[in-house]
Amino acid sequence: MAMTSTAPPRLLAAVREVQPADRGWHERAEARLDRLTKPPRSLGRLEWIAARLCAIQQTETPRAAPRRIVVFAADHGVAAEGVSAYPQAVTAQMVGNFLRGGAAINALAGAAGADVCVVDVGVAGDVDTSGSAARFVPRSVRRGTCNLLQEPAMSHDELVAALEAGLEVADRAAADEVRVIGFGDMGIGNTTAASAITVALTGAVASDVTGRGTGIEGETLARKVDVVDRALLTHRPGRDPLAVLRTVGGLEIAALTAACIGAAAHRIAVVGDGFIATAAALVAAHVCPPFLDYWFAGHLSSEPGHRVQLAHLRQEPLLRLDMRLGEGTGAALAMRLLDGAAAVMNEMATFESAGVADRAPRDRREAAGT
Amino acid sequence: MAMTSTAPPRLLAAVREVQPADRGWHERAEARLDRLTKPPRSLGRLEWIAARLCAIQQTETPRAAPRRIVVFAADHGVAAEGVSAYPQAVTAQMVGNFLRGGAAINALAGAAGADVCVVDVGVAGDVDTSGSAARFVPRSVRRGTCNLLQEPAMSHDELVAALEAGLEVADRAAADEVRVIGFGDMGIGNTTAASAITVALTGAVASDVTGRGTGIEGETLARKVDVVDRALLTHRPGRDPLAVLRTVGGLEIAALTAACIGAAAHRIAVVGDGFIATAAALVAAHVCPPFLDYWFAGHLSSEPGHRVQLAHLRQEPLLRLDMRLGEGTGAALAMRLLDGAAAVMNEMATFESAGVADRAPRDRREAAGT
Repeated sequence: MAMTSTAPPRLLAAVREVQPADRGWHERAEARLDRLTKPPRSLGRLEWIAARLCAIQQTETPRAAPRRIVVFAADHGVAAEGVSAYPQAVTAQMVGNFLRGGAAINALAGAAGADVCVVDVGVAGDVDTSGSAARFVPRSVRRGTCNLLQEPAMSHDELVAALEAGLEVADRAAADEVRVIGFGDMGIGNTTAASAITVALTGAVASDVTGRGTGIEGETLARKVDVVDRALLTHRPGRDPLAVLRTVGGLEIAALTAACIGAAAHRIAVVGDGFIATAAALVAAHVCPPFLDYWFAGHLSSEPGHRVQLAHLRQEPLLRLDMRLGEGTGAALAMRLLDGAAAVMNEMATFESAGVADRAPRDRREAAGT
Repeated sequence: MAMTSTAPPRLLAAVREVQPADRGWHERAEARLDRLTKPPRSLGRLEWIAARLCAIQQTETPRAAPRRIVVFAADHGVAAEGVSAYPQAVTAQMVGNFLRGGAAINALAGAAGADVCVVDVGVAGDVDTSGSAARFVPRSVRRGTCNLLQEPAMSHDELVAALEAGLEVADRAAADEVRVIGFGDMGIGNTTAASAITVALTGAVASDVTGRGTGIEGETLARKVDVVDRALLTHRPGRDPLAVLRTVGGLEIAALTAACIGAAAHRIAVVGDGFIATAAALVAAHVCPPFLDYWFAGHLSSEPGHRVQLAHLRQEPLLRLDMRLGEGTGAALAMRLLDGAAAVMNEMATFESAGVADRAPRDRREAAGT
């Protein structure tokens, strides 16, 4: 385990519960896939999704529902450095929009057959909680992080509180029998924090991972790269994942990290989203490497650092649609692929049961080997 | 129009009905997308799907349902040359499997919220039609094509009958108010026909487009390449799309071609599938170039010729999952992306309506220009 001794006990307990996915179930699933009425391996990566889902759930008949999207929202003191195209007030306004059902994640979660839950881990502004299109979980640790360029983003106690909010979300998902979950983010300024995390944990240079976020360019982008570099020089968190989270992270990213680990502890498949959510997955994988057995890289964002993160995690994204919105939108779109994979395992006939002639055994071996 | 004078009148009538998608509606959709509560263009290619859907349906509130998958099935005389890993009997057996609901397309269409319809355009064996998981449309033109290595795959009258079966399917879809349709194929030997069509219409060499199909290798693959080369040398159909279909095509590919054009004539969005379905789309695009405005390249198959086809059509696939099954499976998976795109148009709030602060006008222009 890569954690320091400061790891909070509840996170440590969840980390210990995460078992590497069962290789035996994976192989049993692959053997069954080869007996289904299709040429062996002809569903490509969908079969890989199916076998992974079987290994996660320890079954040959996996379920991809109920599905849930959880959006973690918080503000970032670093927004004061002018690193975003939008004012900080937008975080609270967008949380209100999530709750009223007017955001992209509402539309896409609906199309994915997933419910939506929004967790306020530290929004600075006042949230209008009158909407009822999503469940609201108020767990505000503080009204936004400190400016990570000046001081650590949060205290140890604040980090622990944010992590516990994430673990609680995972516990609730398990209680609700959620089988597939996607975690999204909302927080003006959070691509700066995610860039700093990515630089710290992958060793990439800031200018390669720091991108346009919500749409900045030119001088603003150069300032953002400089902020990332200077913050890491100031705090020197090394590669200690929790020190990275505390000094240059964000409250929603911390909660997301713990939610990832908690979901894996409950054997819930996690569908990754974009740059912010994958920064959290990166921290989670450093804290708890077997977590990756439960994680599917949902999509490849057009934010340049996302490619760096996925390469570091050795993951191929399921979708490549040049999206860069966050909120869990990429996860929501990718969830349907898991649904398809589960349907293949549950609904397809075998060659024997369907009375369909299979190829000769020699041919089967040839095809399976390629 | 690239057709010869031998084009059958009903196909010609459909071709004349296909209007280029409305640029005005596309632009109106883009303008609306920029007002929705997200950074401009941050949903990437999903916004492009949404705008195309708007242009097809001439609305700002497109619908992606009802959805339908139609599988066209037929046999191929060229199977006698030993170009497939499976016996010809599998075509009829798989049609029975489709009707009983045990095939991959049943599982994936179900997960996509699409109904399934199976058209027998020329299956050689006897089909067990007792299943009721899909609608069966018996339109057999003849029990499989002639061996295209020896003689033209079909006569002119047979071609016309197969094309009319495809047009009928499109008419039925329009009557059922289907908004998104995917066409799939089933036919042992049909990758050989699709390879020949692709070579004829793209000018690629046979060894670059002819692949493993259901899983052949080595000598069998070399024989398949040779069959494609010799067939084209024998029939010399040039680039006349209907001559290509008639001499080296297949009954299900001909029906698929006409169904594509018919769907476009009815302003139904068509989601492309793999190598066979895209061979038909290739013919359709040569017969009726505006058809492509209605067509979405659903996925990139691992069959090598599929990449050649998509490059020729200048289309980027929506999914890349290394699938190579056909049946409409790639189309079924990709349909959900259209559903998501429609949900964005229909359900998202604008900055004004949601009371969310937008960026400054100058910033908006910057972001939109990149």
